[in-house]
Amino acid sequence: MAGLVGDTQQRIALVIQYLGTHYHGWQWQPRQRSIQSEIESAISGVLGEPVRLHGAGRTDTGVHAAAQVAHFDTNAVIPAHRWPAILNGRLPKDILVRGAVAVSLPWHARFSAIWRRYRYTLYTDPLPNLFLAPLAWHYYHHDLDVSQMQAALEPLLGQQNLATFERAGSSRPHTWVEVQEVSCQRRGAVVEIEVQASGFLYGMMRLLVGLLVQVGSGQRSSLDFTRIWQQNCRDEVKYSAPAKGLCLLRVGYPDFPLSQEVWFDTLPRWCLSPAHPDLSIA
Amino acid sequence: MAGLVGDTQQRIALVIQYLGTHYHGWQWQPRQRSIQSEIESAISGVLGEPVRLHGAGRTDTGVHAAAQVAHFDTNAVIPAHRWPAILNGRLPKDILVRGAVAVSLPWHARFSAIWRRYRYTLYTDPLPNLFLAPLAWHYYHHDLDVSQMQAALEPLLGQQNLATFERAGSSRPHTWVEVQEVSCQRRGAVVEIEVQASGFLYGMMRLLVGLLVQVGSGQRSSLDFTRIWQQNCRDEVKYSAPAKGLCLLRVGYPDFPLSQEVWFDTLPRWCLSPAHPDLSIA
Repeated sequence: MAGLVGDTQQRIALVIQYLGTHYHGWQWQPRQRSIQSEIESAISGVLGEPVRLHGAGRTDTGVHAAAQVAHFDTNAVIPAHRWPAILNGRLPKDILVRGAVAVSLPWHARFSAIWRRYRYTLYTDPLPNLFLAPLAWHYYHHDLDVSQMQAALEPLLGQQNLATFERAGSSRPHTWVEVQEVSCQRRGAVVEIEVQASGFLYGMMRLLVGLLVQVGSGQRSSLDFTRIWQQNCRDEVKYSAPAKGLCLLRVGYPDFPLSQEVWFDTLPRWCLSPAHPDLSIA
Repeated sequence: MAGLVGDTQQRIALVIQYLGTHYHGWQWQPRQRSIQSEIESAISGVLGEPVRLHGAGRTDTGVHAAAQVAHFDTNAVIPAHRWPAILNGRLPKDILVRGAVAVSLPWHARFSAIWRRYRYTLYTDPLPNLFLAPLAWHYYHHDLDVSQMQAALEPLLGQQNLATFERAGSSRPHTWVEVQEVSCQRRGAVVEIEVQASGFLYGMMRLLVGLLVQVGSGQRSSLDFTRIWQQNCRDEVKYSAPAKGLCLLRVGYPDFPLSQEVWFDTLPRWCLSPAHPDLSIA
């Protein structure tokens, strides 16, 4: 389709779902498969010219996304709504463009975003389960007290310096984050931790979950959890929860011209009947 | 572990979960990967001798199982409860032995079973969703009226000749089946069809679902559905629903010495929040 070039540049925003299992994260890296480079290659293949895709958040190796948002600029006169079908025909099976829309030029997938929301899923049944394995951490070592975990999460709300939960190797100039919502819920054998914040530090969610399960299992109190990040006791944050349990759930913008169906909670919740007979309703 | 051989033969029953995506079904076939041959190889590797595994039901190419049951005989003195860990260490990632138990010798995985239960999952949202794709048929061509589908299923209850729903190539001597339970439920964008019967004919569930969606979409009435199988109008049964939506849910025995946790509903239900806000409870 190279040659379908107009005079004016369009900015196209994409909403993208992916399984991170077989990728070295979102961001382009030399000699590695990344989500960004797969999609850039697909777009470039259509346009016949190199393209740079800007994502709202950089997910780590093995981390999934239910509704990553990204944009690119093009002079091509392809209508925005046609991009999903065009790209999905060229993308691998584990990356899916769910929506595309033309946005006005100052709009930026990363800089216009006002929050990101992640969900971390744990599967706590003693027996492993293949159907949840690709998307949940099988944590059966200890019982988890969800109310203690919720209590540990709540002091995180507000403007916080979360340097304790930043992995080495970040290029971020500061470690302040506005945490907007936190929750920890159990539904049968499934425990879900959700955090919504203005931004996430490198490795933050996985380090936070790694420490939080110590609260849930009774190895630490919720007060201890809070002391650690408030006093920046980085050497006490030793465990990073496995990547496969983590999913970038959605990205928030002051106004975003795509419907909720495209980007809102495309990661299903798993309901297992025996523990939750009341959920097997019609 | 070859050499750990005692005097008495033990019959070991296994409960097995698998993703059928990359297999040519349960049954051994020349030059094809099958679930049966993968597990037989794993057991033989442990015992140092060939072993024959007998399954409760033969699932087709691409069909999944939440709790397939199978047995094998051995003189090895390995305690039954150790087999899951031993075999899971040797099996591919998409096959999982969830339980094992010694059974008394007349017990037979196939002949002692009194019912099998299958679930077929459809995902009806217009937009595809990667997280459900491996385990559901993305059916968005028409709206599905679940009450009409339920009405079409109900006359199937009882002893029936279901030759209409048998694919060519079956070695079964007759086509009579006792249908014990039927259900068709919608939960948000997910539609689930469950059938429990004394046995299933070759390709039966997929042909049945292929015809049933014509009722759901209004192309046929539920009376028409019943007429077709009662009068054995095989030429009107044209479509076989895709294998990936089908899962052998569980197998019933008069008494089975393994707990429900091992074999009962290990296939989770998917709850997507926007269509079902009432399911996002703690």
